Amino acid sequence: MDDALADFLSEKGSGANQPHLSYLSGLVQDFMSGGKRIRPLLCVTGWQAVGGRDDPERVFRVAACLEMFHAFALIHDDVMDLSNTRRGRPTLHRTLAAHHASCRGPDEVEWFGMSAAVLLGDLTLTWSDELFHSAGLAPAQLGAVLPLVSQMRTELMLGQYLDLHATGGLTDDVDATLNVYRYKTAKYTIERPLHVGAAIAGTDPEAMAAFTAYALPLGEAFQLRDDLLGVYGDPLVTGKSHLDDLRAGKNTTLTALALRTADGEQAALLRRLLGDPLLDEEGAGVVRGIFEATRARETVERMIDDRQQQALRALDDAPFTADAVGALKRIARMATARDS
Amino acid sequence: MDDALADFLSEKGSGANQPHLSYLSGLVQDFMSGGKRIRPLLCVTGWQAVGGRDDPERVFRVAACLEMFHAFALIHDDVMDLSNTRRGRPTLHRTLAAHHASCRGPDEVEWFGMSAAVLLGDLTLTWSDELFHSAGLAPAQLGAVLPLVSQMRTELMLGQYLDLHATGGLTDDVDATLNVYRYKTAKYTIERPLHVGAAIAGTDPEAMAAFTAYALPLGEAFQLRDDLLGVYGDPLVTGKSHLDDLRAGKNTTLTALALRTADGEQAALLRRLLGDPLLDEEGAGVVRGIFEATRARETVERMIDDRQQQALRALDDAPFTADAVGALKRIARMATARDS
Repeated sequence: MDDALADFLSEKGSGANQPHLSYLSGLVQDFMSGGKRIRPLLCVTGWQAVGGRDDPERVFRVAACLEMFHAFALIHDDVMDLSNTRRGRPTLHRTLAAHHASCRGPDEVEWFGMSAAVLLGDLTLTWSDELFHSAGLAPAQLGAVLPLVSQMRTELMLGQYLDLHATGGLTDDVDATLNVYRYKTAKYTIERPLHVGAAIAGTDPEAMAAFTAYALPLGEAFQLRDDLLGVYGDPLVTGKSHLDDLRAGKNTTLTALALRTADGEQAALLRRLLGDPLLDEEGAGVVRGIFEATRARETVERMIDDRQQQALRALDDAPFTADAVGALKRIARMATARDS
Repeated sequence: MDDALADFLSEKGSGANQPHLSYLSGLVQDFMSGGKRIRPLLCVTGWQAVGGRDDPERVFRVAACLEMFHAFALIHDDVMDLSNTRRGRPTLHRTLAAHHASCRGPDEVEWFGMSAAVLLGDLTLTWSDELFHSAGLAPAQLGAVLPLVSQMRTELMLGQYLDLHATGGLTDDVDATLNVYRYKTAKYTIERPLHVGAAIAGTDPEAMAAFTAYALPLGEAFQLRDDLLGVYGDPLVTGKSHLDDLRAGKNTTLTALALRTADGEQAALLRRLLGDPLLDEEGAGVVRGIFEATRARETVERMIDDRQQQALRALDDAPFTADAVGALKRIARMATARDS
């Protein structure tokens, strides 16, 4: 799959009269080299699960298209979050701004970086489409896969919008936080890649329903683990500060649970400390203490456990190949028990 | 075509459990109601030119997809230009910000509007894709049209990037300004819509080359007329200030020509006045005086004329239906002789 990506992007940048395109496709190529490839892995596993065996080239190209779509999503996400780093390197809007820094004022350079990153995201989305259409799917495959890809895109964008909409005020609405996880993580990252892979092999409603029964609880569990790592993870292992989420006042299921069961004094403290950009270790310690006193941390651990069990149970009667069931079980354990 | 758009967007917003999607698709529908539909018109004309007659539904849906793609481009363009109005109404990022204004600070509201508009643009691009794939093209038509749509997208984005890259410093490189026009206007607005329409009817390289020979000079002439209207147009007729382009220090062929032939004093004046956000009528008068003294205005008028003639000549031997030739001639005259 990595070969398909590299070939495609090199070709995009090879138009002799457009050095700009070559620069831009090179940026995307570098950016993508740091990805975890979780969606392509699930896409290929979905294909194998329903008996896909021959002619893996097509599924690899579609898997590559999912990874390129994800690159688009991250480029725009970093613009919206005003993030400076991603995967330990500067985000693309920072790189583009730096590339353009000669003889301009700082505001103008900042603005150029943001605008160019919006455009580069758009270009990456267009390229992910081209990659999809170059996969050589037969008309019947195209008819099965295309609606799933469209749904995946709309679901992600809706999830992003819900998330954006909730930002800026703390919520104690646990279901609302889980709804965002469902769209942004469970459907986008797990369910749809499995569906897309399966649809290439040709599948039936029963198998599709089994993927959903596995993916939705697992995706929620994955995101709930992420919340805990953001607050309790070891920065040396996770590679990110365990203060950032608290300083950003991120709406998570963890904070919603804590707010819901907090007494008046605890709630006031949470509302004062969460979202404080200058929060220090001492303040973070107070927040963590409230997460424990309200049993929010314990509840999230139990929710992860329940959901992991539910995902594993969904595999019991699923009409999947034995190899794929083994792989999906490993993925479920890795996604929920990880420490980074 | 408008029916196809309205039906599609209503359907997108009708998912009962997602009031947000309904709100967002409504915004896009309002936004699109003000468009000039020039790309759809050219798409249908391209189809008729090579003998398309039966089954117009498909070409209407593809034409609608081009209009929706253009809505995406404008939404992101307004974010990048930080524009407050479009077609006499607030831009979408302003509308989204206003919708979200309760209990937030002004910076946060601004940021929400921008971020939500980036997302809404992404969603609109995704929808334009869905509309395209719902047009019911046969596999051979799809094979002919899809590469053209991909090229159109990449060309627009490259044009936008070139434009962005040139912003912030005045250039006397006339060819560089014309290169931006080629991508942003000539290819994107004129050539590709004609090609897409023709490809639906089924066409040959000779016809495609004839469309290009018509479209590229016409597109440049169209944009050159736009430059003149931006500086000399009657605001009551054009509906926009004739100071904005000068205040923004927009790089146009007009300014590049003036800078190239200006003497030292004129060049210094141009560099001081163009891009001054507080430029008044008196300063604008000085700039217009230099445009005339350097014959830049006259040269641009001649360039428009040459290009219009070139576009019309390309129709002389073109293998197009007589009706379409008549329509393309009218479009060429309207695009270059307009006063708004």
